[in-house]
Amino acid sequence: MSTAPVSVQPINFGVLVFPAFQALDVFGPLDALNMLSLSFPLNLSIIASTLSAVSTRPTSATMNPHNSNFSESIMPTHTFDNPPADLEVLIVPGGLGTRAPNLDPTIDFVRRTYPQLKYLITVCTGAGIAARAGVLDGRRATTNKRAWTATTALGPNVNWVTHARWVHDGNIWTSSGVSAGIDTTLAFVEEIYGSEAATNIANGMEYERHTDPSWDPFADLYNL
Amino acid sequence: MSTAPVSVQPINFGVLVFPAFQALDVFGPLDALNMLSLSFPLNLSIIASTLSAVSTRPTSATMNPHNSNFSESIMPTHTFDNPPADLEVLIVPGGLGTRAPNLDPTIDFVRRTYPQLKYLITVCTGAGIAARAGVLDGRRATTNKRAWTATTALGPNVNWVTHARWVHDGNIWTSSGVSAGIDTTLAFVEEIYGSEAATNIANGMEYERHTDPSWDPFADLYNL
Repeated sequence: MSTAPVSVQPINFGVLVFPAFQALDVFGPLDALNMLSLSFPLNLSIIASTLSAVSTRPTSATMNPHNSNFSESIMPTHTFDNPPADLEVLIVPGGLGTRAPNLDPTIDFVRRTYPQLKYLITVCTGAGIAARAGVLDGRRATTNKRAWTATTALGPNVNWVTHARWVHDGNIWTSSGVSAGIDTTLAFVEEIYGSEAATNIANGMEYERHTDPSWDPFADLYNL
Repeated sequence: MSTAPVSVQPINFGVLVFPAFQALDVFGPLDALNMLSLSFPLNLSIIASTLSAVSTRPTSATMNPHNSNFSESIMPTHTFDNPPADLEVLIVPGGLGTRAPNLDPTIDFVRRTYPQLKYLITVCTGAGIAARAGVLDGRRATTNKRAWTATTALGPNVNWVTHARWVHDGNIWTSSGVSAGIDTTLAFVEEIYGSEAATNIANGMEYERHTDPSWDPFADLYNL
């Protein structure tokens, strides 16, 4: 697999966040990209509906049956109404919050931003957001395997792939659930910034990568 | 491996953060524990020197040679001077910030908090903080393999274990670098909350666990 020309190596990354996002969907990919930013000049924007802190806390009591007070909050740098002008890569995480009722501004942001992007990366049920934005129509894609039925129903015109750690179709990379975002990001880094960059990051993270996009014991586990 | 009696299953977790912490050191373990908190009543405190947002951004220009603007900020809930009174488990991450000069308040917090804890978990070069706090003296422990020489020098009275995904000695769990924190946390969950809880979390994360604490190709990679 050859490395992309430097001219198409993106600089400006963004990740969108919403209440009850899944922490590792965001911070698995970003940890890898934080490391990449020590070898390439990169910028990151964190984009949400407002500039207030955004929490992983479940948004409904039924999602948090033991009433745990166990969450983390991240600070946005930009809003959906005032996003960075020059976004090239957008990362869309998943999480319990993708089942919340008020996700329209998030979906609208993906719909109107996608045409300017060089690359879109979804993690886990973030594929459901991209599907609702219409940007996966006619494409191959994957998503979280435990949430498969509910998420794939959001994209009736998407060619959903059951057995996939990730799927790369055109300029869109869709990841399976949660930790798969790390493998997906490393595959993205390998293709765009080169295999040495990806290997260095994986070794620095002490992470045993899955490099086969069709590796997926979880599709079988969840009877897909 | 038997599950701990319910009486010793902790409820009150804390994680300390400092400038230039490694994102996945924090959010790998916390993602697993966020999921655990949906099955057990748990509380989380995020503890730092002040209540201001704490960033992953490298603290010196030499650590960020391309002057990337690529970082994430987390909001603390407590400070070292006003910590939660009832902390039972403390998680200590690593990262470039463990090489910063002004880490004394962080180290002091670990030193004075350890005696009240049920369990201490360090991730990556967080073991260097625990070593400097003196709480690893006379114990077996491990740390990041790429940063091995510099980190182990901080604990001359620690029995450092080169080939280890994690080490469990007494009530302290020390993890190898970055992603190893996920395996360490799942091993901790298995011992304290039961194997069903750990397996459910790993499957929900679509994460292929390493369950052998001596699995460590990175020790060989870095010639240890």
